[in-house]
Amino acid sequence: MIFTAKRFFSQAKKPRNPNHGSIQKSDIEYFQSILSESEINTSDLSKYNVDWMSKYQGESKLVLLPNSTQKISQILSYCNKNMLPVVPQSGNTGLVGGSVPHYDEIILSLQRLNKIIDYDTNNDIVTTESGVILENLNQYLSQFNTEAPYDLGAKGSCFVGGNIATHAGGKYLVKHGPLRGYVLGLEVVLANGQIMNLLNKSRKDNTGIDLKQIFIGSEGSLGIITKANLLCVKKAIEKNLLFIKTSSFQNILQIHNIAKSEIGKNLAAIEWMDSYAYKAVIENIKTAKEVFESQNKIDQSYYVLIEINTNFNKDLVVEQFYNSVSSVEGLVDECVLAQNDHQFDELWKIRELVGSACGHIGKVFKYDISLNTSQMDDITKDLRQKCFNLGLTVGYGHIGDGNLHINISCLDKTKEQQLENQIEPYIFEWLSKKGGSISAEHGLGLMKADYLHLQKKPEVIDCMKNIKKIFDPNLILNPYKILPGI
Amino acid sequence: MIFTAKRFFSQAKKPRNPNHGSIQKSDIEYFQSILSESEINTSDLSKYNVDWMSKYQGESKLVLLPNSTQKISQILSYCNKNMLPVVPQSGNTGLVGGSVPHYDEIILSLQRLNKIIDYDTNNDIVTTESGVILENLNQYLSQFNTEAPYDLGAKGSCFVGGNIATHAGGKYLVKHGPLRGYVLGLEVVLANGQIMNLLNKSRKDNTGIDLKQIFIGSEGSLGIITKANLLCVKKAIEKNLLFIKTSSFQNILQIHNIAKSEIGKNLAAIEWMDSYAYKAVIENIKTAKEVFESQNKIDQSYYVLIEINTNFNKDLVVEQFYNSVSSVEGLVDECVLAQNDHQFDELWKIRELVGSACGHIGKVFKYDISLNTSQMDDITKDLRQKCFNLGLTVGYGHIGDGNLHINISCLDKTKEQQLENQIEPYIFEWLSKKGGSISAEHGLGLMKADYLHLQKKPEVIDCMKNIKKIFDPNLILNPYKILPGI
Repeated sequence: MIFTAKRFFSQAKKPRNPNHGSIQKSDIEYFQSILSESEINTSDLSKYNVDWMSKYQGESKLVLLPNSTQKISQILSYCNKNMLPVVPQSGNTGLVGGSVPHYDEIILSLQRLNKIIDYDTNNDIVTTESGVILENLNQYLSQFNTEAPYDLGAKGSCFVGGNIATHAGGKYLVKHGPLRGYVLGLEVVLANGQIMNLLNKSRKDNTGIDLKQIFIGSEGSLGIITKANLLCVKKAIEKNLLFIKTSSFQNILQIHNIAKSEIGKNLAAIEWMDSYAYKAVIENIKTAKEVFESQNKIDQSYYVLIEINTNFNKDLVVEQFYNSVSSVEGLVDECVLAQNDHQFDELWKIRELVGSACGHIGKVFKYDISLNTSQMDDITKDLRQKCFNLGLTVGYGHIGDGNLHINISCLDKTKEQQLENQIEPYIFEWLSKKGGSISAEHGLGLMKADYLHLQKKPEVIDCMKNIKKIFDPNLILNPYKILPGI
Repeated sequence: MIFTAKRFFSQAKKPRNPNHGSIQKSDIEYFQSILSESEINTSDLSKYNVDWMSKYQGESKLVLLPNSTQKISQILSYCNKNMLPVVPQSGNTGLVGGSVPHYDEIILSLQRLNKIIDYDTNNDIVTTESGVILENLNQYLSQFNTEAPYDLGAKGSCFVGGNIATHAGGKYLVKHGPLRGYVLGLEVVLANGQIMNLLNKSRKDNTGIDLKQIFIGSEGSLGIITKANLLCVKKAIEKNLLFIKTSSFQNILQIHNIAKSEIGKNLAAIEWMDSYAYKAVIENIKTAKEVFESQNKIDQSYYVLIEINTNFNKDLVVEQFYNSVSSVEGLVDECVLAQNDHQFDELWKIRELVGSACGHIGKVFKYDISLNTSQMDDITKDLRQKCFNLGLTVGYGHIGDGNLHINISCLDKTKEQQLENQIEPYIFEWLSKKGGSISAEHGLGLMKADYLHLQKKPEVIDCMKNIKKIFDPNLILNPYKILPGI
């Protein structure tokens, strides 16, 4: 087998860890002795070696697909002794190159760890293996009238374990708060094969240092999550959606503040997009139709989507909120209210298809950042100006939790590299100065590991590295990622 | 000065760490060189040396009350070099002996670190020093129509920093989820004096290992929290409260399930108490009056309190929920609805005064545990039977988040020790077998550190100790507590 490392983007290859070994025939023989034939793949590895954006490409020669915690323990114990690096891989839906090898690391796929173990009906806690697809989990949960406390575009492919390992966010963070608050327990296998039983079904458990927190969001660098106890939420009975067109970003901030005060706990999501994002969808997605009647100059309009969930008369809440925002002169240019489930889905799609729409225009550079909501339009405009000769810049995202997505579509196929150089590290330095986050919900992975110093002080990074050394002293777990220089 | 260690309860004194030094004249001179006179107290230490229950008594000879992070850094750096143990003390309202010395540790009071630094109106994030009293914080926040995302009985005395260090819970956990989800950033001083700047105003920030999580709930054993960024919540506009009397604990579980489904996100709190708890309040608290008209046999009734928060017509929600529960035959014996703010407060007081009422009966042994809600009545009954000759056992607490409080009032002053021996470690072993938590929201402190093995596996405790050694290698921070053998 010959594997060629194909790099689609510029990120320079990091030096290979000289202590790491490469797969030998004897290693394969060991894995054959503990795994069944279907749990070892050495022949058809292409889909495991590349991320879904085709941005990051590895050259692994071995994918292991164990179906039990015990087998993962045996695999890691062996790899740790023999200095064989391992990349844990869940649904491989990440955007930062966190789940594909950088060199020839063994890929440890969680896809056969896909059993839902049990459900506690009194307390709405599901216990599941980590390789369960989010959508499958939700299908299972529907019998109890509950669902997972987060929702992601990738729900048809992503795994619960990967969601926890990357501390996934999504559009319903406003409604539920962070995923971390719902992960009651974990089972994790450490680099040396030790199984850490941190499973727990108590919502409140203040007994010593809460170790499971360290694994949540550590992107597979400290251990491999094999099971989880997840607190589920009851499904909302009534949902409604407003789509508002307004003339300034300042208005969006004001609408957001009114929504928080007036809708309170029934505010499920609040998303914004600028006119460039809106136009990208309407012009590039065939099924998307213009929502509003009024025609403003494209560069003067802003859009905000507000989902309200209630368990009772939704019209009352919508009416009260609408009266409040429309009583402020100049705040609402036009407001559309979904009249049925179909319209509800169609309106959401306009927001959800921004990424795809940008892809129609050209190769997309995607940034997932947090910052003070008041600065969201400033940074978008700044980048638009900086990249105007090469790219189309759109701003959109979760205004309710301070998470901005900036997509920049390259307008000239031959100048992708030049465009990327114009954006990075400029955007990260901008955030470093203003106090935002270079990764809101996507994580660091390979893409941003080397920019961590822009956000965290040296002593904080040192401290992370000290913790890494406790859990993975041989640095075999997901190397080259998350932490710089590891 | 002569200090005598007074022990009110049985917990044996742990052996003094032989590596720890004791305060010398030269130490006092050093502290005088970096602190003002009002920041050093060597003469009137009694209130700092004992917890508010008068259960735990230390013999410290020195209280330091620095008013800046920088000074705390200098103090800890000096103590670390000179092996002087330190107990961080916030409001000293804990129930497990976590904030008073075991021997003569220096008490580092956070009470002068009491400045609220700023408020971000777009994102509702307050930045505050850690020694701010929770009630003062809420007073400050009221100008923005927001409040802290938790509420505690001790709010008039407890400090925000102590709340975070112990991961405080409280009655509104159902409404808001755990405090951890609202702590966006921290500043922490480590044992060696290093200031860890983990301050952050992003709700989503997935950049490497989330170090601040380790400090939340670690009870001052890894570092001293000096500042925090806290996400605040908008105040609910309308509140209502139902108090239901029913004939079985099974009914309470069913009412809870209906409340989750029917009230959804507008369910703010749901609390239960058994007839022994209810009776204790009615018979021992002068201001508490019988709420219900129907007279059942005292040992057959159960009570549930349901708070509903909405931003609009509250009667609609209450009506819908009441119709649902009363349509199930035999579920509701009697239901009372608060008609005004005064009644709202009076009904809540019946639940909140259970602890005081038990104190009127005799010395109280308080247990704060988590377990599957279906077992809450079982463990209470089991303890009642086990202790019936010496104590009165009442069960009550936060059914909405699986947190049970069991209070056992001693009926014979001369047999307190005998009663305690009947309860402990029996209650902790019971939980160990059934999979609950020996500390839901109060923490381990001195009281439960040595029972940690009943809940966590040896390898998990070892891992906690390894983390302790990274942050506090000389074991000077809050010694004898949280972790066994440290």
